[in-house]
Amino acid sequence: MSLTVIGTVALDTVETPFGKLEEGLGGSATHFAASATYFTPLSLVAVVGEDFPEKHLDFFRDRSVDLTGLTRQKGKTFRWKGRYDHDLNTAHTLDTQLNVLLDFHPQLSPAQKKNPFLFLGNIDPVIQSLGIDQMEGKPFIAADTMNYWITGHRDNLLKMLKRVDMLLINEGEARLLADTPNLVKASRIIRGMGPKTLIIKRGEYGALVFHGEEVFNAPALPLEEIQDPTGAGDSFAGGVLGYLAKTQDMSFQNLKKAVIYGSVMASFIVEKFSMDRLRDLNRNEIDSRYRRFCELAHFDNLVGAV
Amino acid sequence: MSLTVIGTVALDTVETPFGKLEEGLGGSATHFAASATYFTPLSLVAVVGEDFPEKHLDFFRDRSVDLTGLTRQKGKTFRWKGRYDHDLNTAHTLDTQLNVLLDFHPQLSPAQKKNPFLFLGNIDPVIQSLGIDQMEGKPFIAADTMNYWITGHRDNLLKMLKRVDMLLINEGEARLLADTPNLVKASRIIRGMGPKTLIIKRGEYGALVFHGEEVFNAPALPLEEIQDPTGAGDSFAGGVLGYLAKTQDMSFQNLKKAVIYGSVMASFIVEKFSMDRLRDLNRNEIDSRYRRFCELAHFDNLVGAV
Repeated sequence: MSLTVIGTVALDTVETPFGKLEEGLGGSATHFAASATYFTPLSLVAVVGEDFPEKHLDFFRDRSVDLTGLTRQKGKTFRWKGRYDHDLNTAHTLDTQLNVLLDFHPQLSPAQKKNPFLFLGNIDPVIQSLGIDQMEGKPFIAADTMNYWITGHRDNLLKMLKRVDMLLINEGEARLLADTPNLVKASRIIRGMGPKTLIIKRGEYGALVFHGEEVFNAPALPLEEIQDPTGAGDSFAGGVLGYLAKTQDMSFQNLKKAVIYGSVMASFIVEKFSMDRLRDLNRNEIDSRYRRFCELAHFDNLVGAV
Repeated sequence: MSLTVIGTVALDTVETPFGKLEEGLGGSATHFAASATYFTPLSLVAVVGEDFPEKHLDFFRDRSVDLTGLTRQKGKTFRWKGRYDHDLNTAHTLDTQLNVLLDFHPQLSPAQKKNPFLFLGNIDPVIQSLGIDQMEGKPFIAADTMNYWITGHRDNLLKMLKRVDMLLINEGEARLLADTPNLVKASRIIRGMGPKTLIIKRGEYGALVFHGEEVFNAPALPLEEIQDPTGAGDSFAGGVLGYLAKTQDMSFQNLKKAVIYGSVMASFIVEKFSMDRLRDLNRNEIDSRYRRFCELAHFDNLVGAV
């Protein structure tokens, strides 16, 4: 089943202890799309400038992304410049140039409006709401956000949150949004704001999923080579939503599986710069990594010998 | 099968956002013993001063701890004073008074020397080695340590590490000991120092177990009420070693199970101050929490629908 993503397409300049990338393909919608398209057809709603390189469009075409919602606008493409140090957990933003993003008003095509799944990448919650306004039927809506919107645009964020089924944010954002250090309490407060399902991303520690009275801990695969953590969160979301859109099964059991597929995709993207590791994965690689997650997390479920 | 622990017995003064404890029962050997005795008989080797309260000895007696190796020495008991802020992850040490610990020379009884399992709590590696020297046969030896010994007493620590089968340390200590930020690399370097099995404790994120080519991620239970994190690491170790000593099964499958029982015990001890939550647990509580860990960590191990 098809999935619409609204978010950013960017040119990323990234420096890590393992190398440097100049104006590589980036942005929340891009990382999401690169991952989700391994599971389901995807339709992109985003904006780029006149300077956006043709080769990057080829990447989307290779992944069979529907680009009817990608508008090319006068001006320059959104740019982000960041640096990671040895711990690789924290992105230090060196420069952000919003450029064409300042005038982004998502216009969904008739087909995009009918898609049963929508993902709202981290972007102004007013724009996220504009996207929701255009959807028809009762789509499943998931969103991401960040500190900037939580502290500076809280009212708009809360309006948007009322309308989403699932929120995916990182640990610090969850604590900030709920104003409590305790994640169990935070999960209750945040789910009181709208989303029935909360997925808290914890980077190299994995993710926690809160849904009803249930809680699930997804591990992250300990990796020896991490070249570039950029996009891990969005490719994680792409795996989760892509798998849900593919299977149409919203049970908690299947949600857990979706979250592991999200973790699998995140474990791949960080192994190389930009989108490089997600250019030519195959089913076997994805499934054998899923099995590694089983080995990593599973233990005998029989109590006893105590 | 019986287990010997060498470590500290202390009087802890602890302040957290949820209350304060004055001169409560603490110390690495104490937290370890309180947990391990739910699985196996335990023999304690430690020192206290003349001022050590009788009621605390009653705690050990209630847990059927063999106290023949607990010597009462002239002078005052080891004291630790610490504070936790809202994040509860970092203990801020306010005061440490070593007192009788300065003259601690463990003397194992004939029975203690024959025990097939030995745990060396965090203490001077010279004292840990003195303990190993006295063991007879081929016991399974596990040890803990900390930054202070890693940076200031590295040679003594490395001598001790050559002789242990398992090391349990936290994430920051692992990075410091191996001198690398990457935990996969660190695990290889540290296991090259002696211990075949490395357990990296990650507090509220759980633990990683490295053994041969295998790796296991044990989750931590997200808790709504954490009153006092003191002793979480030692009660974790007590569960791991207690379960291994009980089952005598050193397979990786059983090691995983032991690590989950360790996580279960750590999840209990933090719910109340000092040893209070470990005074009167019962089998049902332990086993039903083990089942909660299964629900928390397990997902469908069939790949597919992709």
